[in-house]
Amino acid sequence: MYGIIATWRMAKEGVELADQMLKNGEVSGKAIEAAIKAVEDFPYYKSVGYGGLPNEEQIVELDAGYMDGDTMSVGALGAIKDFANPISIAKKLSEEKVNNVLVGAGAEKYAREMKFEEKEMLTDRAKAFYRKRKKELDKELKPYDGHDTVGMVCLDTAGTVTAATSTSGLFMKRSGRVGDSPIVGSGFYADSQVGGATATGLGEDLMKGCISYEIVRLMVEGLTPQAACEKAVTDLDRKLREKRGEAGDLSVVAMNCKGEFGCATNIGGFSFSVATKDQEPVVYLVTREEDGHCSFREADQEWLEEYMRVRMAPVEES
Amino acid sequence: MYGIIATWRMAKEGVELADQMLKNGEVSGKAIEAAIKAVEDFPYYKSVGYGGLPNEEQIVELDAGYMDGDTMSVGALGAIKDFANPISIAKKLSEEKVNNVLVGAGAEKYAREMKFEEKEMLTDRAKAFYRKRKKELDKELKPYDGHDTVGMVCLDTAGTVTAATSTSGLFMKRSGRVGDSPIVGSGFYADSQVGGATATGLGEDLMKGCISYEIVRLMVEGLTPQAACEKAVTDLDRKLREKRGEAGDLSVVAMNCKGEFGCATNIGGFSFSVATKDQEPVVYLVTREEDGHCSFREADQEWLEEYMRVRMAPVEES
Repeated sequence: MYGIIATWRMAKEGVELADQMLKNGEVSGKAIEAAIKAVEDFPYYKSVGYGGLPNEEQIVELDAGYMDGDTMSVGALGAIKDFANPISIAKKLSEEKVNNVLVGAGAEKYAREMKFEEKEMLTDRAKAFYRKRKKELDKELKPYDGHDTVGMVCLDTAGTVTAATSTSGLFMKRSGRVGDSPIVGSGFYADSQVGGATATGLGEDLMKGCISYEIVRLMVEGLTPQAACEKAVTDLDRKLREKRGEAGDLSVVAMNCKGEFGCATNIGGFSFSVATKDQEPVVYLVTREEDGHCSFREADQEWLEEYMRVRMAPVEES
Repeated sequence: MYGIIATWRMAKEGVELADQMLKNGEVSGKAIEAAIKAVEDFPYYKSVGYGGLPNEEQIVELDAGYMDGDTMSVGALGAIKDFANPISIAKKLSEEKVNNVLVGAGAEKYAREMKFEEKEMLTDRAKAFYRKRKKELDKELKPYDGHDTVGMVCLDTAGTVTAATSTSGLFMKRSGRVGDSPIVGSGFYADSQVGGATATGLGEDLMKGCISYEIVRLMVEGLTPQAACEKAVTDLDRKLREKRGEAGDLSVVAMNCKGEFGCATNIGGFSFSVATKDQEPVVYLVTREEDGHCSFREADQEWLEEYMRVRMAPVEES
């Protein structure tokens, strides 16, 4: 078996690429890195990599994380500026003996020493979007809308499970803010003997439940990926509401070491992309029922076209 | 009931202070902050706060984390320079709506805006120690010896459980390196309905098991703090050895909402400080048996005096 699952529609092209690589026997770590890079490099996705929205100081600060489920090796970086592919730096960090999580200027220094590609990550389009949204903030928008992290779990034919994330984080976040994405156990987790999970949503709330670790742990207890995702989201959502009166957006996907997969969310509008040996690459739209059970159906051509049309439409500044 | 437990002997004076505050009805959050500050401010502890050892660039970079078990609110900061009390900044961050985890320059900017005390944290003593250790590195020492994070769990008479950490991290770490200490679920976790846990050791390995979250979860399942600590350390130690051939230092303490406490470690030489309504402030020395069971006995006066004599002895540079 092999397979890859990822948060959101935006991962579709990356999932297709990884699917081909896995089919040809490529290892999980390389396939997931290539898939995440495809999302990072696409300028029209405004929450990951190049073209990502800036923080309140108009600087694009990026987070990424990587875990190898064979060795438990973890690499991650937070609040890094102006490198093209944070995921590749995170993966390289996972190979270091210690100092696997680096942030800010120290992370940039490492990336420079390792000769990773430097790139001005703030695009004119993202600047225009920033100006437009900033104007709207006084009106109806919540200041921290928009936090579509790409997170993936990948299984190769040899049975290695990896998990990885990449994001520009909350729109209008403070300088130096780090969410769940570079935090192992919260944004991502992988264990080749079990499976992996990854999360997207309000990082500040996702990390309160170590949600990716919890999903993998529930799979160890025997739950299917679908049941594990639903239980983890439902439990954390309930606990947040009980203790805080509200819960931020929580969306997750998981795949086990047999290539079975699942998803859960506490919001409307969550989508994910997946491919396995038995399943052509596809985008699913997720619906959450009152009881926390989540069902998903394939996105039709109209939805997919509309999605891309909206993403690529000119930014109209009033 | 009330109580406070903390990693290492170095927390003793802080624990004594918090014990008095709790006895007088002070809330958990204020008591734990005062206790951690006492450790941060003491110049002879070289792994926390003022006097902490610098990174490889001779800069003291500090990490801290805080969690309120009533509200699940978390605040943390990583790789911050030249502020006197990282724990107070972390606690303040836990009160923000979002942007609760800040790193590097962004964290410093926030701390400056909030008017936290700025302080040159690198002491002459730490510089001398750095030079001495650097010379020894070529000989027998492991480059990353020394990672004695102070972590605490505190219960007040109203039943609020908090957890907090503060550290200068691995000696000779890379600039920007972040360990488990500012990561919720790894370095610390608190749930007032259950209890709390905190960790010290090799952050890069502790975070692979979300060990503080796991301990609290095991207490939810009904394990005593002692059994939960032992199981979490034994399981993670075994998994690391199986998957990586070796395990870094893992030491933990926990207290539940009844004031019962426990500890576990996979090393020799771990100590902890504790006080409760029923227990005068005391330092315990921990011994790990072959089977992972850990016992502890009170440190005698001789041990305590020798400890302080070594900490305060002049640094002899050859």
